[in-house]
Amino acid sequence: MFQSKLFGKTLRDPPKDEQSINARLLVQAGYVEKLMAGVYSFLPLGLRVLNKIENIIREEINVIGGQELLLPALHPREAWEQTGRWETVDDLYKLTDSSGRDFALGATHEEIITPLAKRDISSYRDLPLALYQFQTKFRMELRAKSGLLRGREFMMKDLYSFHVNEEDFNAYYKKVADAYKKIFNRTGIGERTVFTFASGGTFSKYSHEFQTLTSAGEDTIYLCEHCGVAVNGEIIDEQKVCPECGRPKDDLKIEKAIEVGNIFPLKTKFSEPFKLTYKDEKGEDRPVLMGCYGIGLGRVTGTIVEVHHDKEGICWPSAVAPYQVHLVRLSDEPEIVKQANALYEKINKLGLDVLYDDRDASAGVKLKDADLIGLPLRLVVSDKTVKDGVYELKERMSSRARVVKDIIGEIDKYKTFINQPIGKTL
Amino acid sequence: MFQSKLFGKTLRDPPKDEQSINARLLVQAGYVEKLMAGVYSFLPLGLRVLNKIENIIREEINVIGGQELLLPALHPREAWEQTGRWETVDDLYKLTDSSGRDFALGATHEEIITPLAKRDISSYRDLPLALYQFQTKFRMELRAKSGLLRGREFMMKDLYSFHVNEEDFNAYYKKVADAYKKIFNRTGIGERTVFTFASGGTFSKYSHEFQTLTSAGEDTIYLCEHCGVAVNGEIIDEQKVCPECGRPKDDLKIEKAIEVGNIFPLKTKFSEPFKLTYKDEKGEDRPVLMGCYGIGLGRVTGTIVEVHHDKEGICWPSAVAPYQVHLVRLSDEPEIVKQANALYEKINKLGLDVLYDDRDASAGVKLKDADLIGLPLRLVVSDKTVKDGVYELKERMSSRARVVKDIIGEIDKYKTFINQPIGKTL
Repeated sequence: MFQSKLFGKTLRDPPKDEQSINARLLVQAGYVEKLMAGVYSFLPLGLRVLNKIENIIREEINVIGGQELLLPALHPREAWEQTGRWETVDDLYKLTDSSGRDFALGATHEEIITPLAKRDISSYRDLPLALYQFQTKFRMELRAKSGLLRGREFMMKDLYSFHVNEEDFNAYYKKVADAYKKIFNRTGIGERTVFTFASGGTFSKYSHEFQTLTSAGEDTIYLCEHCGVAVNGEIIDEQKVCPECGRPKDDLKIEKAIEVGNIFPLKTKFSEPFKLTYKDEKGEDRPVLMGCYGIGLGRVTGTIVEVHHDKEGICWPSAVAPYQVHLVRLSDEPEIVKQANALYEKINKLGLDVLYDDRDASAGVKLKDADLIGLPLRLVVSDKTVKDGVYELKERMSSRARVVKDIIGEIDKYKTFINQPIGKTL
Repeated sequence: MFQSKLFGKTLRDPPKDEQSINARLLVQAGYVEKLMAGVYSFLPLGLRVLNKIENIIREEINVIGGQELLLPALHPREAWEQTGRWETVDDLYKLTDSSGRDFALGATHEEIITPLAKRDISSYRDLPLALYQFQTKFRMELRAKSGLLRGREFMMKDLYSFHVNEEDFNAYYKKVADAYKKIFNRTGIGERTVFTFASGGTFSKYSHEFQTLTSAGEDTIYLCEHCGVAVNGEIIDEQKVCPECGRPKDDLKIEKAIEVGNIFPLKTKFSEPFKLTYKDEKGEDRPVLMGCYGIGLGRVTGTIVEVHHDKEGICWPSAVAPYQVHLVRLSDEPEIVKQANALYEKINKLGLDVLYDDRDASAGVKLKDADLIGLPLRLVVSDKTVKDGVYELKERMSSRARVVKDIIGEIDKYKTFINQPIGKTL
């Protein structure tokens, strides 16, 4: 991509109306634009990041047998009345059409997927089943002030699973937890992300969250450094000890964290009101057990930025960077332009995504923008490098540039870091 | 994909609450499920079709320089008041949050993209610009009864272009028209789709539609068989003659058709209220000229089915079929299962998408379902074919099956039909 053509110019200064680091950097660097609090447009760079995260999630959920579908955002009031949640869910957007019919905007999709699953589930032979989607959710957050971390409208991966019994459910629940670990590793926040015990609601003892440690977090968790698990602050008073080793609350470390994913045993909470049952081997009707599993893609994007940035800008992990290579041309001399253009073609042919800064701007502006945008590998072509027959290569996370001769060899080596194995623990 | 695991079983009968052919077939075959009139869930098979159409559109719009982004569905009332359309657009869903703030659900995105474009457009050097998205639209259709042809919620490709003058706009408008032709050719409805003159609103003489001829169409068009273009019935009385050759209305043929795409010169309709201007070479402020270009993906899906079906079921064109090959195994004998499984692996390795009917069902049910689902190539493995060392191959559009020996050679030949060239007139 030629940067001179790219929609989403960098801004000289961070936006004044954003407090969070993720929104300040993502807006300034041209990834997103705020339409209103909690509602963002994803510009081409931002959409590329979102798509890369989506694809990592898709690959890992497919490995554990998830089937992708797409459910509507517009829900009939009747579906939410069936579960009693029309009145009880505070953040549900509601609307009425001109014929007087009421709708909710989907904040989550149990009310839709449960009756839909009845279409195919009648016997134990139809189970287990796992269905997921990438779909836009709407939640009435009146105080959305954390950039992409808490949206009124946001893209979510929601997975729902259906089982004959607890044993089958538990085995799948563990599979999803493992898939989530791989997803957060691949997106570059695995090291800071902790498996956390949270409230299971009325139907289960616990649900579980994946909490990423950062001062930007809105959640408080109690981390057991011995076990590497945590307890959500919301249940610490009733929980009192680490659920793994029994260490008391006072031995746990209080941390701020962002909930990047959650997994939730629903048991029969939704199958009962919708009468989702199956016939067992004896022909007897039994309720289907369910689980639900969410990851907010915008929130993961914001979390990556909170975790991976420095004072100059964003530092994208390779697998989620919008482009892997930032080719920066520091001269408009015809010979330099020719060499830079040729290099751009070559790197594209290697199968790497390249952003090519061909803009009419000063070296200072270009290098500053490269740090702000934060692609993993910066490659400078200038009068001096061409004269010396070399290239200047700098990793975003490294403090200094290297001079290299065999640029294609170097870039090719780098390729192995982005072609991540699917379904493997990194 | 193993059909025994696929979510979205075929139904014995078409749904009683659907009148349109597209909905009756798509629901019965397990592609979509109706949540309410005009609102459908896309099951795995249906989502695969939608994604294939989306990808064809993306490829062709990228060729003409479109940059993909993603805009929100939740719009502030103020944006729609700026253009006066808060009150005048009848099919706008409106809602109010608990703090009393009003929102519209995006029925189209001029009100969002025009102010967003101001972010990057200040000089003539920033133009032309073309931005597009695949995004869910909401329209309050009180009488949605045509299945996927008219949705209250539907996925749309909307492209917006920005220009310095009429000449530049006209050149791009023509490029989009050409790209649309390629898109409709590639999705298999090109031969039945006619370039149609329609109302240009208050700002332009004409807009243009791509109308697919079918009795299921809700639009009436006047087709000039001499020129191969048409006039929308809505403007025929003022238009009177074929705009290309001047033949009078009476010489034009009245046809029913579905509007699968439209292209619309907006001129300064939106740039004026949002004060989207650029500085020309002399430093003077001038209004930006705009165009907008839409394709509804669900409507294209429904149209393909209306055009390509027979009394047994759907007949998907290769490029949009959810799977290209339907491998149907008509025996549970271990040797047959072994051979069918091996063939399934081989075809997958060739890079073709295969749906493998491994279900415990009768030959009659399986062959009937294969016709209903409508994949382009049916491949039967049975006791008899294995005994004879052959395979039975049937194209969905052909009335009879062929017996072949070199199945891999046959399938490989077939591959060239689905790998369509991008940006080329077929």
